[in-house]
Amino acid sequence: MDLIQPRTLKGFRDYPPELMIPREHLLEKARQVYRSYGFAPIDTPALEYAEILLGKGGDESDKQLYRFTDHGQRDVALRFDLTVPFARFAAEHIGKLGTPFKRYHLGPVWRGENTQRGRYREFWQCDFDTIGTTANAADIEVALVIHDLMKALGLERFRIHVNNRRVLNGLLEELGLAGQTAAVLRALDKLAKAGRDAVIAEMGMAAVAPAQAERLLNLVEMAGSNSEILERLAKDFGTNATAADGIRRLTELIAVAQEAGVPPDFLKLDVSIARGLDYYTGTVFETFLTDLPAIGSVCSGGRYDNLASLYTKQVLPGVGASLGLDRLLAAMEELKMLETVSTSAPVLMVQFDPKFLGRYQQTARALRAAGIGVEVFPDPKKIGQQLQYAEKRGFRLALIAGADEFDKGVWKVKHLAKREEKTMPQSDLERELKSALLPESV
Amino acid sequence: MDLIQPRTLKGFRDYPPELMIPREHLLEKARQVYRSYGFAPIDTPALEYAEILLGKGGDESDKQLYRFTDHGQRDVALRFDLTVPFARFAAEHIGKLGTPFKRYHLGPVWRGENTQRGRYREFWQCDFDTIGTTANAADIEVALVIHDLMKALGLERFRIHVNNRRVLNGLLEELGLAGQTAAVLRALDKLAKAGRDAVIAEMGMAAVAPAQAERLLNLVEMAGSNSEILERLAKDFGTNATAADGIRRLTELIAVAQEAGVPPDFLKLDVSIARGLDYYTGTVFETFLTDLPAIGSVCSGGRYDNLASLYTKQVLPGVGASLGLDRLLAAMEELKMLETVSTSAPVLMVQFDPKFLGRYQQTARALRAAGIGVEVFPDPKKIGQQLQYAEKRGFRLALIAGADEFDKGVWKVKHLAKREEKTMPQSDLERELKSALLPESV
Repeated sequence: MDLIQPRTLKGFRDYPPELMIPREHLLEKARQVYRSYGFAPIDTPALEYAEILLGKGGDESDKQLYRFTDHGQRDVALRFDLTVPFARFAAEHIGKLGTPFKRYHLGPVWRGENTQRGRYREFWQCDFDTIGTTANAADIEVALVIHDLMKALGLERFRIHVNNRRVLNGLLEELGLAGQTAAVLRALDKLAKAGRDAVIAEMGMAAVAPAQAERLLNLVEMAGSNSEILERLAKDFGTNATAADGIRRLTELIAVAQEAGVPPDFLKLDVSIARGLDYYTGTVFETFLTDLPAIGSVCSGGRYDNLASLYTKQVLPGVGASLGLDRLLAAMEELKMLETVSTSAPVLMVQFDPKFLGRYQQTARALRAAGIGVEVFPDPKKIGQQLQYAEKRGFRLALIAGADEFDKGVWKVKHLAKREEKTMPQSDLERELKSALLPESV
Repeated sequence: MDLIQPRTLKGFRDYPPELMIPREHLLEKARQVYRSYGFAPIDTPALEYAEILLGKGGDESDKQLYRFTDHGQRDVALRFDLTVPFARFAAEHIGKLGTPFKRYHLGPVWRGENTQRGRYREFWQCDFDTIGTTANAADIEVALVIHDLMKALGLERFRIHVNNRRVLNGLLEELGLAGQTAAVLRALDKLAKAGRDAVIAEMGMAAVAPAQAERLLNLVEMAGSNSEILERLAKDFGTNATAADGIRRLTELIAVAQEAGVPPDFLKLDVSIARGLDYYTGTVFETFLTDLPAIGSVCSGGRYDNLASLYTKQVLPGVGASLGLDRLLAAMEELKMLETVSTSAPVLMVQFDPKFLGRYQQTARALRAAGIGVEVFPDPKKIGQQLQYAEKRGFRLALIAGADEFDKGVWKVKHLAKREEKTMPQSDLERELKSALLPESV
């Protein structure tokens, strides 16, 4: 029989253990932090009626849909994000769920994108949102969640850039550019990547005079501490009702976050942050790594006026953000923050003599019950071969015992990186392994 | 504008928090136990080339495939299980990964099945396998993993039924039925559901005389302890080389599992377990709940000779099993083992006075850092409304403080189910909450 060539589709990839272990670690930390704030998990189907998804992300997004006719002649498609399914979900269930409703949703989405930019056609999103309230407390909490999540992932050098679309809208009103808001903000969103000149040129296409564009850019790029910027905005634009509301919410956000224990350095008022999506109407967030700003925002989001207007008449305002899992993983890899191991258990128990398999598994199970992962090698191969396997996979310790050791009630513990071996009584094993596996002792 | 009707596809469903919380809990326990044995996570794409999936699960499975042509005119389909993608994955990567290779894989699969039997077209599988070894140690470990997983899920009353296809093959050889093995085992697999008469009738269709079928059924249903059955099998069929090998492996499995600490009651030698799939060649497992046997096996698997023969010439023997997540959740619901809460955090902090939002979040963050989930209510609504929200969601405790309490440095802690309220100093809060949240004090 001819063999079928084992291959994945273009733009898709397998996750072997060395990629999947850090991925699962990130997902677990995200769940942990989201839950600690009372966000509850939901899930929705990968497949939806095409009409639910079409026209929600623009023409480009429609073209990228994995869309087909199912067995029942239904027009269906794979979800391209988690926001549209959440809007459909909220419209369907909010009556029963009640508000405020806080949910997180981690899951894969599919886009038939051009893969040239190193993007994949299947990737995970990690969203959290509070809907059914306009309270600024919910906006503030998004900043706290992002901060605590980044810290939980071991990141110390990052900054959450925060702004409010109402401040930008007020500025544009005062500059006489209210009619060109969408085009101006789309251009502004490219500032970090494309630079001032490109932004001024793009604004020019929307009939914004260069001098006006300059003035706007000087405003949004104003230097100073958060409170200096807030003071200047209040002084210059405080009489504009829209801007004043945005300034008030930002002022409260920064004060409350600091009182709640977020050091001021982690939160940066950045009037240039617009977020391209027309969708956002209030607070907006982007998160940058100090050591890798060019990678872009690793956690972004904002406030919107109405989540599910296409599916229900019930007005559902909300605020949330999304962790850029793949981008953050790429960044952590570049920052050498990821362990490259391909084992889930740190300890390999060598199968020295197959007649002791029951005793090996007995000790291994006792250690597992104490929270220490232990793999028992399945074949009684030469010790050298088993240790080679352990080193290749990234096990940290190996346990060895045969008839002699069982007679004496001891185990040999081999520290693989240090190439050291200790012999210790069975009764000390748990304590010794726990201490040898502490991160600081690596 | 007309509203789009918010609805899910037939056979698909949303998971609101009260369904998703226990689901995530089960998945986490499965990961935890799999990892503790050294199984490492992998993932593969939801979409594969159709040729990878076609013909792997029989005609029925081909018909149920969600198959379509993608943007690049590729013939693609959604995976219908995790075994076929694992075979493709192994063929592609095993050279680099090396053997033995232990992996777990949790993820959704899709089948356009008839939904009348309460089945869904999207469901999760939770597989774990060791490949690249024929060692019985790997088979034995499957039994240990199943046992430890069920216990970790809080199940105490279950039994892992174990058999070996080689014992059955040997029996059939000795009964002169070697030529009809596949048909006989397919019939036998229906014994628990369809009963003896139906099985004898089906075997009749494969030219098995009723007397012979009776004799076979009497053998596979023989009563007795594990060791009694093993002794009788050895006595009657020990001269058949195939049966003898199966008996030897089963004998070792039962002895080692017991030595490793699995109480003998949890493991039942059951010669009637065939598992319908042609795929299995050695040890086979099924797991039944003592209080709900009719729900069927909640964790099944077995040994196979060659995982990936369609994709590679490298022979990859292995053994593994799959947790029936949805079936087990249904069973646990019926056994009233699932909490019905829709919050991820057990504590609601009432927003009594909005000017203290910073202090609320400060204390909430300190409690979160200590491992206690705390949601801060976003709006300063009436206390009664906030407590009603807390009760509806299943919060267990509410924290209340206003100017008076902050002056005195105290918090009011309300136990929602007991309707009791205590006032305590801020410094006691963490300890008191932890003690109030202990499972036994509910």
